[in-house]
Amino acid sequence: MRARHKPWADDYLKDNPDIVELNPSEYKGNWQHLKSGDKPIHLEIGSGKGQFIEGMANQHPDIHFVGMEVVKSIIVSAVEKVSEAGYSNITLINENAQDLSELFEDNEVDQIYLNFSDPWPKNRHEKRRLTYKTFLEQYYRILKSNGELVMKTDNKGLFEYSLESFSQYGCILEEVSLDLHQLQDPLNVMTEYEEKFSAKGQPIYRCRVRFPA
Amino acid sequence: MRARHKPWADDYLKDNPDIVELNPSEYKGNWQHLKSGDKPIHLEIGSGKGQFIEGMANQHPDIHFVGMEVVKSIIVSAVEKVSEAGYSNITLINENAQDLSELFEDNEVDQIYLNFSDPWPKNRHEKRRLTYKTFLEQYYRILKSNGELVMKTDNKGLFEYSLESFSQYGCILEEVSLDLHQLQDPLNVMTEYEEKFSAKGQPIYRCRVRFPA
Ligand SMILES: C[S@@+](CC[C@H](N)C(=O)[O-])C[C@H]1O[C@@H](n2cnc3c(N)ncnc32)[C@H](O)[C@@H]1O
Ligand SMILES: C[S@@+](CC[C@H](N)C(=O)[O-])C[C@H]1O[C@@H](n2cnc3c(N)ncnc32)[C@H](O)[C@@H]1O
Repeated sequence: MRARHKPWADDYLKDNPDIVELNPSEYKGNWQHLKSGDKPIHLEIGSGKGQFIEGMANQHPDIHFVGMEVVKSIIVSAVEKVSEAGYSNITLINENAQDLSELFEDNEVDQIYLNFSDPWPKNRHEKRRLTYKTFLEQYYRILKSNGELVMKTDNKGLFEYSLESFSQYGCILEEVSLDLHQLQDPLNVMTEYEEKFSAKGQPIYRCRVRFPA
Repeated sequence: MRARHKPWADDYLKDNPDIVELNPSEYKGNWQHLKSGDKPIHLEIGSGKGQFIEGMANQHPDIHFVGMEVVKSIIVSAVEKVSEAGYSNITLINENAQDLSELFEDNEVDQIYLNFSDPWPKNRHEKRRLTYKTFLEQYYRILKSNGELVMKTDNKGLFEYSLESFSQYGCILEEVSLDLHQLQDPLNVMTEYEEKFSAKGQPIYRCRVRFPA
């Protein structure tokens, strides 16, 4: 998952301080006041090339979106996209979900999105799945009381696992869809992966879960 | 769902007192001692023509199975099947799931099965679904503490609904499968509907949930 070192990528991220936050831990506990102008904070983990976050920022101008993506060569594409669109309610951070608690204070985030997270199908890689209990523990901490998480994936095994993991952690399943595109939800914003897989006719799974109070 | 009156069916049920219990409410609170010889009680609701319960009784001689089926003309086929197989660990009752609390005492049942329950897809029929909260409330009462329910269905809408309903009731999802036959579980006993739908290539959904203590 590590990108090869690309000096131009570093420079490019530095050159876009309005979109990219290079030292996000400085905002811990103060995202809403310092970055979002008191808008609620929605966090996407593994935001890839930014199509989802751009569409969401457009649809919800009253929400501030933070996109977290660990691979530098991928987040660069998201910066380009957001820069062209000119939205001011997006911040991109080149960070790893494992470090969430260093970046956000308890109860600081209103909603979390996981889109087409890496499935890590082997049992021995269970701990790397973004819905493994140690990750849920971090989401629980940084989310507001009764905060929500929305997950989309095409991966059956990851979705089955995640439903069990959410439930066993104490989350409530508020919505489960086993074929999102049959629903034709007009507010659904497609990600890059979602477009690719649904064009092939594969079902897309989605769930919305509420964390305990 | 009501069968036409068939006098021969009434006689046939009466003629098989070892298999059919015509007055099951008499056993309330005493199923285990009077009927099952101290074996745990597993209840299938909507047992249809009995293929599942027969296979399960064969696989688990140490469990006593109760099959509940509301339609007389259907339960008759189950009686024929069980009678031929000659198992002593099955009791069939021609009753409606709505009356569960009249038939079983609190904490009397070890496990419940719902197989291919009628989906009642219209919103206004939600209350008739066997996973609607009023049914879950009855299951919770008659099940032992931490009792389990296993559900199988081919119906996507009913499965989505049921996952949400179980979760919102406070059940924990212990296992979710979105394509049971891909799993090739050697212990899975197929129902009549399951054979029909999986032969057509449709995915079969299964979940195992644990009720709260
Ligand atoms: C399969 S891609 C999906 C991208 C995008 N969400 C979509 O739906 O098109 C998964 C993305 O998550 C990123 N990712 C994986 N693990 C991560 C982690 N621990 N922290 C942040 N990003 C991660 C990967 O680098 C990759 O860009
Ligand atoms: C779709 S069939 C499935 C039969 C069988 N379980 C199978 O999988 O092949 C549903 C069965 O549940 C029965 N049923 C529906 N509602 C019921 C209720 N409230 N109480 C008992 N049985 C019911 C129906 O009569 C029918 O036989």
